Amino acid sequence: MPTLATAITTPDPAALEEWLDATPDRGERERQLRDLAAPDRARLVAGMQPELADRLLAVIEPRTAATLLTSASPAAAAGLLAALDSDIAADILREFPATTAASLIGALPPARALVLNGLLSWPPDSAAAHMVPEALVISQGQDVESALTQLRLQTAAAPVDSLAAAYVYVVDDDRRLLGVVSLQQLVLAAPGTQVAELTETDIITVDANTDDEVAARTLTDNRLAALPVIDKEDRLLGVITADVAADIVEDENTEDAERQGGSEPLEVPYLQASPVRLWRKRVVWLLVLFIAEAYTGTVLRYFEDELDAVVSLAFFIPLLVGTGGNTGTQITTTLVRAASTGEVRLRDLGKVLPKELSAAMMISATMAAVGLLRAWTLGVGWPVMVTVSISLAAIVLWSAFVASILPLILTKTKIDPAVVSAPMIATIVDGTGLLIYFMIAKSIIPELSH
Amino acid sequence: MPTLATAITTPDPAALEEWLDATPDRGERERQLRDLAAPDRARLVAGMQPELADRLLAVIEPRTAATLLTSASPAAAAGLLAALDSDIAADILREFPATTAASLIGALPPARALVLNGLLSWPPDSAAAHMVPEALVISQGQDVESALTQLRLQTAAAPVDSLAAAYVYVVDDDRRLLGVVSLQQLVLAAPGTQVAELTETDIITVDANTDDEVAARTLTDNRLAALPVIDKEDRLLGVITADVAADIVEDENTEDAERQGGSEPLEVPYLQASPVRLWRKRVVWLLVLFIAEAYTGTVLRYFEDELDAVVSLAFFIPLLVGTGGNTGTQITTTLVRAASTGEVRLRDLGKVLPKELSAAMMISATMAAVGLLRAWTLGVGWPVMVTVSISLAAIVLWSAFVASILPLILTKTKIDPAVVSAPMIATIVDGTGLLIYFMIAKSIIPELSH
Repeated sequence: MPTLATAITTPDPAALEEWLDATPDRGERERQLRDLAAPDRARLVAGMQPELADRLLAVIEPRTAATLLTSASPAAAAGLLAALDSDIAADILREFPATTAASLIGALPPARALVLNGLLSWPPDSAAAHMVPEALVISQGQDVESALTQLRLQTAAAPVDSLAAAYVYVVDDDRRLLGVVSLQQLVLAAPGTQVAELTETDIITVDANTDDEVAARTLTDNRLAALPVIDKEDRLLGVITADVAADIVEDENTEDAERQGGSEPLEVPYLQASPVRLWRKRVVWLLVLFIAEAYTGTVLRYFEDELDAVVSLAFFIPLLVGTGGNTGTQITTTLVRAASTGEVRLRDLGKVLPKELSAAMMISATMAAVGLLRAWTLGVGWPVMVTVSISLAAIVLWSAFVASILPLILTKTKIDPAVVSAPMIATIVDGTGLLIYFMIAKSIIPELSH
Repeated sequence: MPTLATAITTPDPAALEEWLDATPDRGERERQLRDLAAPDRARLVAGMQPELADRLLAVIEPRTAATLLTSASPAAAAGLLAALDSDIAADILREFPATTAASLIGALPPARALVLNGLLSWPPDSAAAHMVPEALVISQGQDVESALTQLRLQTAAAPVDSLAAAYVYVVDDDRRLLGVVSLQQLVLAAPGTQVAELTETDIITVDANTDDEVAARTLTDNRLAALPVIDKEDRLLGVITADVAADIVEDENTEDAERQGGSEPLEVPYLQASPVRLWRKRVVWLLVLFIAEAYTGTVLRYFEDELDAVVSLAFFIPLLVGTGGNTGTQITTTLVRAASTGEVRLRDLGKVLPKELSAAMMISATMAAVGLLRAWTLGVGWPVMVTVSISLAAIVLWSAFVASILPLILTKTKIDPAVVSAPMIATIVDGTGLLIYFMIAKSIIPELSH
């Protein structure tokens, strides 16, 4: 299998195309690009044909593409950017400082510069920021032959994105969206067919300012190749394509995973995150959780006399709080995921809570049984054994209750339910779990019931 | 906004189409379908036109679609299945018991039954199980006009999936894949252009037996609308489309999230999982973790005399093990996610470990400082304060080390790195963290150093 390093040194420019075809794994491409020495990187960019740029820069991280372009002269970089689909070019340009991006755009043909400046002017998390403005559009009231002629004229300069081209949009003179017809139907219709006969007028669209994640989910929820983005006057601004929607959903999944791990999202690919960034994104939640967890110390000091009298109670502290945290974590991760895909909302609480509490009853009984067994093997005597067993049952139920409700409540707020992380649920359950444990201990163990 | 319940009672069949267009959110559609009473469900299916079936059944959970079809007569159900893309129909058929699926397929036209039986014969997690067998194919050595004529004949019966139709595949007489041309280029080329001039012969393909997740990632990694699936003789069997790839990636993400929460994957949509299923998928890991966590009791009993002598040491147990677990969870979730998207592999350990340990040093110093402060507020005296502070620093480093290595090692095995869950890392760190704590305590606190 050819490596990038050898492909660069081969005089044949096709060697790079071959490398790309033989390396369909994005992670592997990133790895080989990252490992390139600076002179090799400069050589790669210097010898890059626009066709290769169109293929390569579209299928690597925008940050990596920006780093590559930095090795080229501004004119050469602009030349390569010109070869890309507009949405991809805009993604890469967002990785540059504003002044560098502006000078790169300045070196592009005016029509193209206008399109890219337009894309960059939208808020980065809006649907419009991620669209391809160049959709296939035709006017109404014609037959398929003349429609195809109109499309040929429109795409003579450059073909549009292949996913965007799955659909042809019918618009009026003000570019207001009237309907959609699939390119396939247009092409394969019997000659003489009127476009109107093939046009679907009920169209799923998103407004330009729609949140990009909502737009991406709308596209995938409806198995579309492309989703039209319109302005307030129903004018077609562009389309979001399925590949970009997949990127947006994947980025959202990565952010959710990071939040669920009790960290702020890194916002850059992991291998490109510096240790200082890792520290900064992680330490905030660690401190919040530390402060929240600190009250376990207060609880334990409050029960100091009980601990002193029956020191074996301490043996089970990690086991009890650990099991409570595990039970809660199982529930929140499942619910956060279901909330993230749109499967559950707050109004499903009436279905979620009975289901979770039923499952928790069974788990509670199981854990009470094994807890009794474990306490017996430590030889702590009946009163502590019973205390541990009942406490486990109670903590599991309490944890399930908290973990079922919290993420669902957050679906109604601006806060991402994913912040109800494994560490957070464990922290909430730790202190309350200890309270439950010692209260049960005081009512069961003779030495403590004074 | 129309609801499904009102749309069903409207005599106009277009009401259901309107409901579908007005409800682009998949979760909301599922909710309304689920809330339908059995007679309404039967009425919905009885009145369903094939065009509506094609749209509706493709954009709901296969399980929900199967439930709907169960309300219809076998003949009616088969009629609706016939309207669907083959990959969608196969997904729904997999939800039925084998005998029911076989009888439904038996009621289909023979050509169609052959295609569906073919799809169902592949292992469910293979690329071939998820393909659309009906791709657009043309033979080599012709110009674009005759190619389009060939396509018109091929699709006269039914248009192919609109994502699959983004590309036209050039095959030889044995259906061996020779190249690909985008439908757009074929249509918009100047009349008289030879197909060969437009054909790209370097094609990314997957073998029929490729794991479906690998195939889906290959498609998204390369921003494709469809990915050809070939057999060992390079014959084109069908294509995986971007919408199905998105489903596969989303299912994988859900499974990973569930594993990361310390549970077995539910394998069904959350709201369709019974409490017994929840219990079954969760209790296994809870028991494993309980047994692993139980050794914290052994550690604590071993240090019973120390605890008895300095009971204030117990105050910090949940805080110390909690912070260790939180640090480890942050790292594993980030790494498991990066491994799942293919960004990191075991061979990146040389980059991951120094990065994580550098970040951990900073976190370690931060936590040691706040730990000292917290111990001071509890008034436990200098020796315990210093013990807590140094232990926090040591536990954070130890946890970071374990959490960095474990998920990466698993990328080299058959085990999904996602099993290194928040609860698992917390459990590993709990017992070892306590050992670290008491060893530091014994060497620092005068009463214990005998």
